[in-house]
Amino acid sequence: MDRVPILQIGDVLLVSIQVDLQDQSVLNLQEDLAERISATGASGVVIDISAVEIVDSFIGRMFATIASLSQLFDADTVVVGMRPAVAITLVELGLTLGNVRTALDLDRGIKILRVLHERRRGLPGTGHAASTLGLR
Amino acid sequence: MDRVPILQIGDVLLVSIQVDLQDQSVLNLQEDLAERISATGASGVVIDISAVEIVDSFIGRMFATIASLSQLFDADTVVVGMRPAVAITLVELGLTLGNVRTALDLDRGIKILRVLHERRRGLPGTGHAASTLGLR
Repeated sequence: MDRVPILQIGDVLLVSIQVDLQDQSVLNLQEDLAERISATGASGVVIDISAVEIVDSFIGRMFATIASLSQLFDADTVVVGMRPAVAITLVELGLTLGNVRTALDLDRGIKILRVLHERRRGLPGTGHAASTLGLR
Repeated sequence: MDRVPILQIGDVLLVSIQVDLQDQSVLNLQEDLAERISATGASGVVIDISAVEIVDSFIGRMFATIASLSQLFDADTVVVGMRPAVAITLVELGLTLGNVRTALDLDRGIKILRVLHERRRGLPGTGHAASTLGLR
Protein backbone atom coordinates (compact mmCIF):
# COMPACT_ATOMS: atom_id res chain seq x y z
CA MET A 1 0.00 0.00 0.00
CA ASP A 2 2.67 2.49 -0.94
CA ARG A 3 0.53 4.42 -3.41
CA VAL A 4 -2.17 6.83 -2.34
CA PRO A 5 -5.41 5.75 -4.04
CA ILE A 6 -7.21 8.24 -6.29
CA LEU A 7 -11.00 8.05 -6.10
CA GLN A 8 -13.45 9.52 -8.57
CA ILE A 9 -16.78 11.21 -7.81
CA GLY A 10 -18.43 12.33 -11.02
CA ASP A 11 -15.78 14.35 -12.79
CA VAL A 12 -13.86 15.17 -9.63
CA LEU A 13 -10.85 13.20 -8.43
CA LEU A 14 -10.39 12.74 -4.70
CA VAL A 15 -7.14 12.12 -2.88
CA SER A 16 -7.27 11.46 0.85
CA ILE A 17 -3.88 11.81 2.51
CA GLN A 18 -3.70 9.43 5.45
CA VAL A 19 -0.07 8.47 5.82
CA ASP A 20 3.14 10.41 6.26
CA LEU A 21 4.24 10.98 2.69
CA GLN A 22 7.80 10.13 1.74
CA ASP A 23 9.53 11.63 -1.29
CA GLN A 24 8.82 8.60 -3.47
CA SER A 25 5.12 8.42 -2.54
CA VAL A 26 4.72 12.09 -3.41
CA LEU A 27 6.31 11.52 -6.83
CA ASN A 28 4.10 8.47 -7.37
CA LEU A 29 1.00 10.43 -6.38
CA GLN A 30 1.82 13.28 -8.78
CA GLU A 31 2.45 10.81 -11.60
CA ASP A 32 -0.74 8.84 -10.86
CA LEU A 33 -2.79 12.03 -10.67
CA ALA A 34 -1.48 13.38 -13.97
CA GLU A 35 -2.33 10.07 -15.63
CA ARG A 36 -5.80 9.89 -14.07
CA ILE A 37 -6.71 13.49 -14.97
CA SER A 38 -5.50 12.92 -18.50
CA ALA A 39 -7.40 9.62 -18.82
CA THR A 40 -10.67 10.76 -17.22
CA GLY A 41 -10.78 14.41 -18.28
CA ALA A 42 -11.60 15.28 -14.67
CA SER A 43 -12.52 18.91 -14.06
CA GLY A 44 -11.06 19.12 -10.57
CA VAL A 45 -8.98 17.54 -7.84
CA VAL A 46 -9.85 17.56 -4.13
CA ILE A 47 -7.08 16.76 -1.67
CA ASP A 48 -8.41 15.87 1.77
CA ILE A 49 -5.95 16.45 4.62
CA SER A 50 -8.28 15.89 7.58
CA ALA A 51 -5.95 13.13 8.82
CA VAL A 52 -2.83 15.23 8.42
CA GLU A 53 -1.43 16.59 11.67
CA ILE A 54 1.59 18.44 10.34
CA VAL A 55 1.84 20.46 7.13
CA ASP A 56 5.37 21.58 6.42
CA SER A 57 6.89 23.29 3.42
CA PHE A 58 7.41 19.87 1.77
CA ILE A 59 3.69 19.10 1.81
CA GLY A 60 2.94 22.69 0.85
CA ARG A 61 5.13 22.34 -2.24
CA MET A 62 3.33 19.10 -3.12
CA PHE A 63 -0.03 20.91 -3.12
CA ALA A 64 1.40 23.63 -5.34
CA THR A 65 2.88 21.09 -7.76
CA ILE A 66 -0.39 19.15 -7.96
CA ALA A 67 -2.29 22.39 -8.57
CA SER A 68 0.09 23.38 -11.39
CA LEU A 69 -0.10 19.89 -12.89
CA SER A 70 -3.92 19.90 -12.78
CA GLN A 71 -4.04 23.33 -14.35
CA LEU A 72 -2.18 22.00 -17.39
CA PHE A 73 -5.11 19.61 -17.85
CA ASP A 74 -7.62 22.43 -17.28
CA ALA A 75 -8.54 21.10 -13.84
CA ASP A 76 -8.68 23.02 -10.54
CA THR A 77 -7.36 21.89 -7.18
CA VAL A 78 -8.90 22.41 -3.75
CA VAL A 79 -7.37 21.33 -0.44
CA VAL A 80 -10.04 20.46 2.15
CA GLY A 81 -10.34 19.35 5.75
CA MET A 82 -7.43 21.23 7.25
CA ARG A 83 -7.29 20.84 11.03
CA PRO A 84 -7.47 24.07 13.04
CA ALA A 85 -4.07 23.32 14.61
CA VAL A 86 -2.55 22.93 11.15
CA ALA A 87 -4.03 26.23 10.01
CA ILE A 88 -2.65 27.99 13.09
CA THR A 89 0.82 26.53 12.52
CA LEU A 90 0.78 27.58 8.86
CA VAL A 91 -0.10 31.16 9.78
CA GLU A 92 2.35 31.32 12.68
CA LEU A 93 5.20 30.03 10.54
CA GLY A 94 4.22 32.36 7.72
CA LEU A 95 3.89 29.41 5.33
CA THR A 96 1.51 29.75 2.41
CA LEU A 97 0.04 27.09 0.15
CA GLY A 98 0.81 29.20 -2.89
CA ASN A 99 -2.21 29.63 -5.12
CA VAL A 100 -3.90 26.50 -3.86
CA ARG A 101 -7.52 27.02 -2.87
CA THR A 102 -8.80 25.62 0.40
CA ALA A 103 -12.29 24.75 1.65
CA LEU A 104 -13.73 23.58 4.95
CA ASP A 105 -14.77 20.12 3.84
CA LEU A 106 -15.20 17.80 0.87
CA ASP A 107 -18.76 18.96 0.09
CA ARG A 108 -17.72 22.61 -0.08
CA GLY A 109 -14.59 21.71 -2.03
CA ILE A 110 -16.69 19.96 -4.68
CA LYS A 111 -19.06 22.94 -4.82
CA ILE A 112 -16.13 25.33 -5.40
CA LEU A 113 -14.83 23.10 -8.21
CA ARG A 114 -18.29 23.12 -9.83
CA VAL A 115 -18.50 26.90 -9.70
CA LEU A 116 -15.00 27.26 -11.16
CA HIS A 117 -15.85 24.75 -13.88
CA GLU A 118 -19.08 26.56 -14.76
CA ARG A 119 -17.22 29.86 -14.95
CA ARG A 120 -14.66 28.41 -17.33
CA ARG A 121 -17.19 26.89 -19.68
CA GLY A 122 -17.96 29.21 -22.51
CA LEU A 123 -14.69 31.04 -22.21
CA PRO A 124 -12.94 31.49 -25.58
CA GLY A 125 -9.69 29.92 -24.38
CA THR A 126 -9.40 27.18 -21.80
CA GLY A 127 -6.68 25.34 -20.01
CA HIS A 128 -3.24 26.71 -19.48
CA ALA A 129 -3.63 29.34 -22.16
CA ALA A 130 -6.67 30.77 -20.43
CA SER A 131 -4.98 30.78 -17.06
CA THR A 132 -1.94 32.53 -18.51
CA LEU A 133 -4.24 35.21 -19.86
CA GLY A 134 -5.72 35.64 -16.40
CA LEU A 135 -9.08 34.28 -17.45
CA ARG A 136 -9.51 32.14 -14.36
CA MET B 1 -2.45 9.46 11.89
CA ASP B 2 -3.75 6.36 13.61
CA ARG B 3 -7.41 7.02 12.82
CA VAL B 4 -8.90 6.48 9.40
CA PRO B 5 -10.59 9.74 8.35
CA ILE B 6 -14.28 9.70 7.50
CA LEU B 7 -15.25 12.00 4.64
CA GLN B 8 -18.73 13.18 3.78
CA ILE B 9 -20.24 13.64 0.31
CA GLY B 10 -23.81 14.87 0.60
CA ASP B 11 -25.47 12.38 2.92
CA VAL B 12 -22.99 9.61 2.22
CA LEU B 13 -19.97 8.90 4.40
CA LEU B 14 -16.78 7.73 2.72
CA VAL B 15 -14.01 5.67 4.27
CA SER B 16 -10.90 5.01 2.21
CA ILE B 17 -8.80 2.20 3.65
CA GLN B 18 -5.14 2.90 2.86
CA VAL B 19 -3.14 1.35 5.66
CA ASP B 20 -2.93 -2.10 7.15
CA LEU B 21 -5.55 -2.01 9.86
CA GLN B 22 -4.62 -3.17 13.35
CA ASP B 23 -7.19 -4.31 15.89
CA GLN B 24 -7.27 -0.94 17.62
CA SER B 25 -7.66 1.08 14.40
CA VAL B 26 -10.59 -1.12 13.39
CA LEU B 27 -12.27 -0.51 16.75
CA ASN B 28 -11.60 3.23 16.44
CA LEU B 29 -13.02 3.28 12.92
CA GLN B 30 -16.20 1.49 13.98
CA GLU B 31 -16.65 3.86 16.91
CA ASP B 32 -15.97 6.96 14.77
CA LEU B 33 -18.35 5.74 12.07
CA ALA B 34 -21.17 5.06 14.53
CA GLU B 35 -20.74 8.56 15.96
CA ARG B 36 -20.61 10.21 12.54
CA ILE B 37 -23.66 8.38 11.20
CA SER B 38 -25.57 9.25 14.35
CA ALA B 39 -24.47 12.91 14.21
CA THR B 40 -25.01 13.47 10.48
CA GLY B 41 -27.96 11.20 9.79
CA ALA B 42 -26.07 9.85 6.80
CA SER B 43 -28.03 7.51 4.56
CA GLY B 44 -25.11 5.36 3.55
CA VAL B 45 -21.48 4.40 4.00
CA VAL B 46 -19.01 3.68 1.19
CA ILE B 47 -15.83 1.82 2.07
CA ASP B 48 -13.19 2.12 -0.62
CA ILE B 49 -10.62 -0.68 -0.65
CA SER B 50 -8.84 0.12 -3.91
CA ALA B 51 -5.55 0.39 -2.00
CA VAL B 52 -6.07 -2.88 -0.15
CA GLU B 53 -4.02 -5.78 -1.44
CA ILE B 54 -5.11 -8.47 0.96
CA VAL B 55 -8.61 -9.06 2.33
CA ASP B 56 -8.66 -11.75 5.01
CA SER B 57 -11.41 -12.92 7.32
CA PHE B 58 -10.45 -10.16 9.77
CA ILE B 59 -11.17 -7.41 7.26
CA GLY B 60 -14.24 -9.30 6.07
CA ARG B 61 -15.62 -9.30 9.61
CA MET B 62 -14.95 -5.57 9.86
CA PHE B 63 -17.09 -4.92 6.77
CA ALA B 64 -19.88 -7.06 8.23
CA THR B 65 -19.69 -5.24 11.58
CA ILE B 66 -19.76 -1.82 9.92
CA ALA B 67 -22.73 -2.90 7.79
CA SER B 68 -24.64 -4.11 10.88
CA LEU B 69 -23.77 -0.92 12.75
CA SER B 70 -24.91 1.27 9.86
CA GLN B 71 -28.13 -0.67 9.56
CA LEU B 72 -29.01 0.22 13.13
CA PHE B 73 -28.88 3.86 12.02
CA ASP B 74 -30.93 3.07 8.90
CA ALA B 75 -27.87 3.49 6.66
CA ASP B 76 -26.61 1.06 3.99
CA THR B 77 -23.02 0.02 3.38
CA VAL B 78 -21.27 -0.60 0.08
CA VAL B 79 -17.70 -1.79 -0.37
CA VAL B 80 -16.12 -0.43 -3.57
CA GLY B 81 -12.88 -0.60 -5.51
CA MET B 82 -11.95 -4.22 -4.87
CA ARG B 83 -8.87 -5.23 -6.84
CA PRO B 84 -9.34 -8.20 -9.22
CA ALA B 85 -6.64 -10.16 -7.36
CA VAL B 86 -8.48 -9.63 -4.08
CA ALA B 87 -11.76 -10.82 -5.61
CA ILE B 88 -10.05 -13.95 -6.98
CA THR B 89 -8.50 -14.72 -3.59
CA LEU B 90 -11.83 -14.27 -1.82
CA VAL B 91 -13.55 -16.69 -4.18
CA GLU B 92 -10.71 -19.22 -4.12
CA LEU B 93 -10.62 -19.25 -0.34
CA GLY B 94 -14.41 -19.44 -0.18
CA LEU B 95 -14.54 -16.28 1.94
CA THR B 96 -17.68 -14.16 1.77
CA LEU B 97 -18.27 -10.60 2.86
CA GLY B 98 -21.53 -11.61 4.51
CA ASN B 99 -24.40 -9.41 3.43
CA VAL B 100 -22.17 -6.50 2.49
CA ARG B 101 -22.89 -5.08 -0.94
CA THR B 102 -20.06 -4.38 -3.33
CA ALA B 103 -19.74 -2.09 -6.36
CA LEU B 104 -17.06 -1.48 -8.96
CA ASP B 105 -16.18 2.06 -7.94
CA LEU B 106 -17.17 4.99 -5.77
CA ASP B 107 -19.58 6.48 -8.32
CA ARG B 108 -21.52 3.23 -8.67
CA GLY B 109 -21.44 2.70 -4.91
CA ILE B 110 -23.05 6.10 -4.33
CA LYS B 111 -25.66 5.32 -7.00
CA ILE B 112 -26.55 2.05 -5.29
CA LEU B 113 -26.91 3.86 -1.96
CA ARG B 114 -29.23 6.40 -3.57
CA VAL B 115 -31.44 3.71 -5.06
CA LEU B 116 -31.61 1.86 -1.72
CA HIS B 117 -32.41 5.11 0.06
CA GLU B 118 -35.16 5.99 -2.44
CA ARG B 119 -36.65 2.53 -2.02
CA ARG B 120 -36.77 2.90 1.74
CA ARG B 121 -38.41 6.29 1.71
CA GLY B 122 -42.15 5.98 2.05
CA LEU B 123 -41.96 2.60 3.67
CA PRO B 124 -44.13 2.36 6.78
CA GLY B 125 -41.26 1.19 8.99
CA THR B 126 -37.64 2.22 8.60
CA GLY B 127 -34.38 1.37 10.23
CA HIS B 128 -33.68 -1.83 12.04
CA ALA B 129 -37.35 -2.65 12.41
CA ALA B 130 -37.84 -2.47 8.65
CA SER B 131 -34.81 -4.59 7.98
CA THR B 132 -35.97 -7.18 10.49
CA LEU B 133 -39.27 -7.35 8.65
CA GLY B 134 -37.39 -7.98 5.42
CA LEU B 135 -38.38 -4.63 3.96
CA ARG B 136 -34.93 -3.84 2.64
